[in-house]
Amino acid sequence: MDTIPALSTEKVVIILCSYKIKWMKAIFLKDGKLGLLDVPRPVRAKDEALIRVRLAGVCNTDIELVKGYMNFTGIIGHEFVGTVEECDEDSLKGKRVTGEINRGCGRCELCLGGDPRHCATRKVLGISGLNGAFAQYLVLPERNLSPIPDSVSDEDAVLVEPLAAAMQILAQIEIKEEDKVLIIGDGKLGILISLALNTTGAKISLAGHHTERNREMMPDIEHITLKDNPPGMVCFDVIVEASGSLDGLEDAVRYIKPLGTIVLKSTFHGDAAFNTSLIVINEIKIIGSRCGRFEPAIDSLASGKIKIPSGYIAKSFQLENGLEAIKYAEAKGVLKVLVKS
Amino acid sequence: MDTIPALSTEKVVIILCSYKIKWMKAIFLKDGKLGLLDVPRPVRAKDEALIRVRLAGVCNTDIELVKGYMNFTGIIGHEFVGTVEECDEDSLKGKRVTGEINRGCGRCELCLGGDPRHCATRKVLGISGLNGAFAQYLVLPERNLSPIPDSVSDEDAVLVEPLAAAMQILAQIEIKEEDKVLIIGDGKLGILISLALNTTGAKISLAGHHTERNREMMPDIEHITLKDNPPGMVCFDVIVEASGSLDGLEDAVRYIKPLGTIVLKSTFHGDAAFNTSLIVINEIKIIGSRCGRFEPAIDSLASGKIKIPSGYIAKSFQLENGLEAIKYAEAKGVLKVLVKS
Repeated sequence: MDTIPALSTEKVVIILCSYKIKWMKAIFLKDGKLGLLDVPRPVRAKDEALIRVRLAGVCNTDIELVKGYMNFTGIIGHEFVGTVEECDEDSLKGKRVTGEINRGCGRCELCLGGDPRHCATRKVLGISGLNGAFAQYLVLPERNLSPIPDSVSDEDAVLVEPLAAAMQILAQIEIKEEDKVLIIGDGKLGILISLALNTTGAKISLAGHHTERNREMMPDIEHITLKDNPPGMVCFDVIVEASGSLDGLEDAVRYIKPLGTIVLKSTFHGDAAFNTSLIVINEIKIIGSRCGRFEPAIDSLASGKIKIPSGYIAKSFQLENGLEAIKYAEAKGVLKVLVKS
Repeated sequence: MDTIPALSTEKVVIILCSYKIKWMKAIFLKDGKLGLLDVPRPVRAKDEALIRVRLAGVCNTDIELVKGYMNFTGIIGHEFVGTVEECDEDSLKGKRVTGEINRGCGRCELCLGGDPRHCATRKVLGISGLNGAFAQYLVLPERNLSPIPDSVSDEDAVLVEPLAAAMQILAQIEIKEEDKVLIIGDGKLGILISLALNTTGAKISLAGHHTERNREMMPDIEHITLKDNPPGMVCFDVIVEASGSLDGLEDAVRYIKPLGTIVLKSTFHGDAAFNTSLIVINEIKIIGSRCGRFEPAIDSLASGKIKIPSGYIAKSFQLENGLEAIKYAEAKGVLKVLVKS
């Protein structure tokens, strides 16, 4: 049951035919307003799993959704770890899982190749056409689920989705040990990207407004502010733009070496303007980067190759206080906020 | 002798010490005005070659220079074929050559690696700090020169520089036989790019305002107008933006497939604005592309792998009528204009 407000006749019939409607609490977005509502618990179809959410994380995208991004109506939230309560596949029953957020059509070339992330008719958990994780239950196709090893805590497992997005950069570009790498934006996403790229052995610099806080959390990474390092004095082979602001992209173009690579992680409202002649003359590459595969992220957390620094989780809230959680996460400089179901 | 107006004392002494000052005709740009002037013939230094220009081509960049691009003062022109009259390297003497237009410092990492194209202190023939080819003579370092085989005519050899720039795309990205490739902009550069990319076996579509003319010249390529092919109906794995207009980049973003590659060939005045969120969501790559290596271009012309279609050369002028040549080249829809020295 994807959307609450526009129930199809078929779904209404299904609900009416149920002997007992089960209800759950959920954070529901409609017309830019969030509410903590009692809504019917979702019903799984064949090859889908009903998952009891254990923990969900607040992402900047959730905050953007409230502002109107994607024009989404439904239950928000896409970073989660949960327990499979009902499914067809025996090996998943009772397992702790997280899930790929893109639900592809299952029939197109991309989906059949095992990658629904760019399926043209995909729905996206808690973002587009599919109810999300700030709820007691959610439903996802079984093929989207990844079991979580016992050695990975719920607090780490809930970060698999954003860590996979950070590690997607490693799947897209080659970073050499001798490369100088700059990450612009030292918030939630910038920190995960730093942790991911620091596994390459390259020199990582993280630029933003929270150098003191981050230096304590990650002493093996260079923490800088760009205003103390004018372009020309420093320049980089690879720059990741994760600031979520227009200035970040402009800075990236100013600090990149000829033949360098800029990775775009932030989505901007509206159009960003920049000097494309510099891109041509210096033969710069710009690569958009979105969701990543979950397995490398789970493996890195399980093996300890990537350790989430203590301090990365800012605060945890119960689902009943979920609206307060999202308000808390909106404040500048706040790191990861979690919601317990 | 790079710049005429600001002669260093040392150069004045050299000139005064010459027993006989030799003069030549050249098209000189100063303060946005072109003039056909008698100027001193350049004097080569050690490891440089004095080249008698046989034929030079008018590029859009020349027209942009007149408008103020690069704020250049000096002899314009960078596409040429000529004969070496004086040099130190015996194997070059009397040879027909063309030349890499970037004159690097010769000492930095890039130059020592054999690639002066991105040397930070490079000068560029007829574009930046170095007198160019619309003249009877020019001087370039011997290491910049490429001999032209007898089987390649002057009319083909003069196109080595722009063809190398077109073929640079093949050095930067992989184009598969099953890829659908769109080139936006069907002028001088777009045609050479079509010829270069058509060697990959991929399906090439060339979009612009000269479909009728180009279809006759290149019947084995698809010639389209974008307005007859709305995005959604058609989309492409690779798009090369070679239109020289802001609309070209906007169109490229609209017509590219998720995970596709946009190659930027045009330099724009000012900033181009576009929706970077689409770049992130669809994980699109944008790659700036400038100058290419000459050897693959010369080999392709010599072997007949790339054949310049008859009709590509619009008109030839004598150097004495060089100002008229550039005026002729400025008109919309005019293909390659040549200047004979």
